[in-house]
Amino acid sequence: MLDALALPTPLTALVQLRRAEPGDLAQLLELLSDDPLSASREAPYPHDAGYARALAQIIEDLGNELIVGVQGAQIIAMLQLTRIPGISRGGCTRLNVEAVRVRAEHRSSGLGTALLRWVIDQAAPACDADLIQLTSDSSRAGAHRFYERLGFTCSHLGFKLRR
Amino acid sequence: MLDALALPTPLTALVQLRRAEPGDLAQLLELLSDDPLSASREAPYPHDAGYARALAQIIEDLGNELIVGVQGAQIIAMLQLTRIPGISRGGCTRLNVEAVRVRAEHRSSGLGTALLRWVIDQAAPACDADLIQLTSDSSRAGAHRFYERLGFTCSHLGFKLRR
Repeated sequence: MLDALALPTPLTALVQLRRAEPGDLAQLLELLSDDPLSASREAPYPHDAGYARALAQIIEDLGNELIVGVQGAQIIAMLQLTRIPGISRGGCTRLNVEAVRVRAEHRSSGLGTALLRWVIDQAAPACDADLIQLTSDSSRAGAHRFYERLGFTCSHLGFKLRR
Repeated sequence: MLDALALPTPLTALVQLRRAEPGDLAQLLELLSDDPLSASREAPYPHDAGYARALAQIIEDLGNELIVGVQGAQIIAMLQLTRIPGISRGGCTRLNVEAVRVRAEHRSSGLGTALLRWVIDQAAPACDADLIQLTSDSSRAGAHRFYERLGFTCSHLGFKLRR
């Protein structure tokens, strides 16, 4: 169903959205580390084969899309969408958002807002999802205000267990 | 990859775990409404065709499994698993848990613990997931203690937007 997303598409006058490709790996890893909290979660050897395998799996998976925002040849933003069909809330399909990142020098430029507005206004209807959900690390107060300004409600607590 | 789960399997001496089937719909809806918070989210006409369509979609979707705990012919527990391949955290695959429900008369019996232990100890390794994640409504203090006892860390806030 995520293959119903009309991509590539212009996001702003300068930025194009498209699906990630295997050749994007190095730029994606740079973007993931372009933030102190995220950097602390990544392996010291960023070209570990695990990353390439993971990217290939996301690209192959029909229920997942890794979307990148590009300016020319540079990836300046990313996010991952997962479509989750569900029985609760009236049989509501959810669109789960993970790994939202914007390059440091493009933050506070409206790019993050444009990206999330695209998720809400274009991607969710295209894949028939009525509920958009995401979690944000408890320490990211700025991100929480950002999501609330977009109309999200902070109604849940997010629990994680690493095996 | 979720088709790698070895099901059906015994969960306790009396309870068997298996994949949900289309004929389970009426019992699943009863279980979803067996809780004041959940009941408030469901449609007044529980046999709306949307529920049947949603159940069929979950059953078909390779990245999703709706698992039920049965005692004889009665469904007394459920949860939904979604496998989410991811690039962050070292290319870590996540197992997302939604719609955890236990029938009122079986709560505090250890059944919920057995169910989540199965997710952590059996389901996550079988589908190669290193991170298990879920969100819980902020008002469910008992559920939060339950997940923390199981080893989950409450590190995130969960945001939702209904279109």
